[in-house]
Amino acid sequence: MELWYTEKQTPNYGITAKIKQTLHTETTEFQDLAMIDTVEFGRMLVLDGCVMTTIRDEYVYHEMISHIALSAHPNPERVLVVGGGDGGVIREIIKHPTVKQAVLAEIDGRVIDVSREYLPEIACALDDPRVDVRVIDGIAHVQENPTTYDVIIVDSTDPIGPAVGLFAREFYESIARALKPDGIFVAQTESPFLNGELITRVHGDIASIFGVTRLYLAAIPTYPSGLWSFTIGSKRHDPTVIADPARTAALTTRYYTPELQQAAFALPRFVADLLG
Amino acid sequence: MELWYTEKQTPNYGITAKIKQTLHTETTEFQDLAMIDTVEFGRMLVLDGCVMTTIRDEYVYHEMISHIALSAHPNPERVLVVGGGDGGVIREIIKHPTVKQAVLAEIDGRVIDVSREYLPEIACALDDPRVDVRVIDGIAHVQENPTTYDVIIVDSTDPIGPAVGLFAREFYESIARALKPDGIFVAQTESPFLNGELITRVHGDIASIFGVTRLYLAAIPTYPSGLWSFTIGSKRHDPTVIADPARTAALTTRYYTPELQQAAFALPRFVADLLG
Repeated sequence: MELWYTEKQTPNYGITAKIKQTLHTETTEFQDLAMIDTVEFGRMLVLDGCVMTTIRDEYVYHEMISHIALSAHPNPERVLVVGGGDGGVIREIIKHPTVKQAVLAEIDGRVIDVSREYLPEIACALDDPRVDVRVIDGIAHVQENPTTYDVIIVDSTDPIGPAVGLFAREFYESIARALKPDGIFVAQTESPFLNGELITRVHGDIASIFGVTRLYLAAIPTYPSGLWSFTIGSKRHDPTVIADPARTAALTTRYYTPELQQAAFALPRFVADLLG
Repeated sequence: MELWYTEKQTPNYGITAKIKQTLHTETTEFQDLAMIDTVEFGRMLVLDGCVMTTIRDEYVYHEMISHIALSAHPNPERVLVVGGGDGGVIREIIKHPTVKQAVLAEIDGRVIDVSREYLPEIACALDDPRVDVRVIDGIAHVQENPTTYDVIIVDSTDPIGPAVGLFAREFYESIARALKPDGIFVAQTESPFLNGELITRVHGDIASIFGVTRLYLAAIPTYPSGLWSFTIGSKRHDPTVIADPARTAALTTRYYTPELQQAAFALPRFVADLLG
């Protein structure tokens, strides 16, 4: 018997992957959670029916949401991840030796537990002494910690269900307050082929709050359309410039390169047009 | 009743798209040909079970296989397309006013006929007076026309069935002879996520023949993995440099921009590693 997992990435198309077995399913306090083992992509974390990460291609998302902002900051010491319970972003952050504390604010502790059990390659840094794992509401944490962080990374699910508040203008205002005076923030902002209206709205909101707002792209096979956007709000530093070339050159990566620090911001015309 | 078309892009994963209707199917002298109308991507040309082009995202492939090479050449007058029976590459080529003759060498005349009927947005330039549509073997045409073309574009199907010869070293040698002394050639060379061995081999073959060999990328939602590579062999001109900025700036495009002439060559580390 062949079993296939199909995610409708829109109501009218999707990806389908042959599975070896379903390792775990549950309904947490916040969402449906599944861990399946696929032939093509290896183990795959699925939340509310959407692929979050896979062993095969996780490095693209985790490196690209982390190293652009961290490389643009001259001395990132305190870093916050909102969401990101699988631990992949934390693993990338602590590759920067400047980092003294990386806080993970994940609202759903079951994502952390299940990732620790089934995705050790991704969750491997959660026990690092510099890492502070907290099962808390990231929105409240940001509101309660003004002028605290050098870099904030919003590693959210899609803007439905528990993550709606992570795409709200009020949240971006709280982030600006939680950052130090030269802080940088980055959020995953979905597919330019499929979520153009969201990208336009979010970019406008962030641009009304931060001095520097830029969008960049990366290619992620298991995400809808394969092309993914990230939006940066920066108070001072230009995100296309590497602040400390020696630190960035020393990163061990599979996707990110120093050359992409600029090139990832070169947008296809239809994407640039979304930003007005 | 819901009908879905599923392409297994590898034996173990694929894309699936809801269809409105099947417009046409036939077995030509060379391949299985289908034209289906999908809800998400509009009309979709499928050859031997692989999506070739769709109304929704065809501009990415057709612009990116054309305008990089054409913009790198200071005066492209005679241009050859091998394959490309849907006409999309021809439509982009004749946007360059320097072009005096664009030859389409498509081995399967039925692809041309069916594209004219069902994909008029793509095939629209095939009747332009500068265009010479020939139902011929592109490999033989290249062998028989030395020192003829400024630019040659190989718009092939995947390297199985009728297209195997279009990925052979002997073919690249013929192309080098068919080009003028400052000619440029470009070929689609599949997905770096899925076809790394092919990319490595083709890049090595082309580099042993041409003075300048470079690989660049574009994001194509309906192609396997969503990330696609193109390999350029150039006798003299640097493909990352725009030869005539005024001509390139005047192009009407939806994906290509002059900024991408450089940025598309900035490779993720795992892709750069394929090139040795």
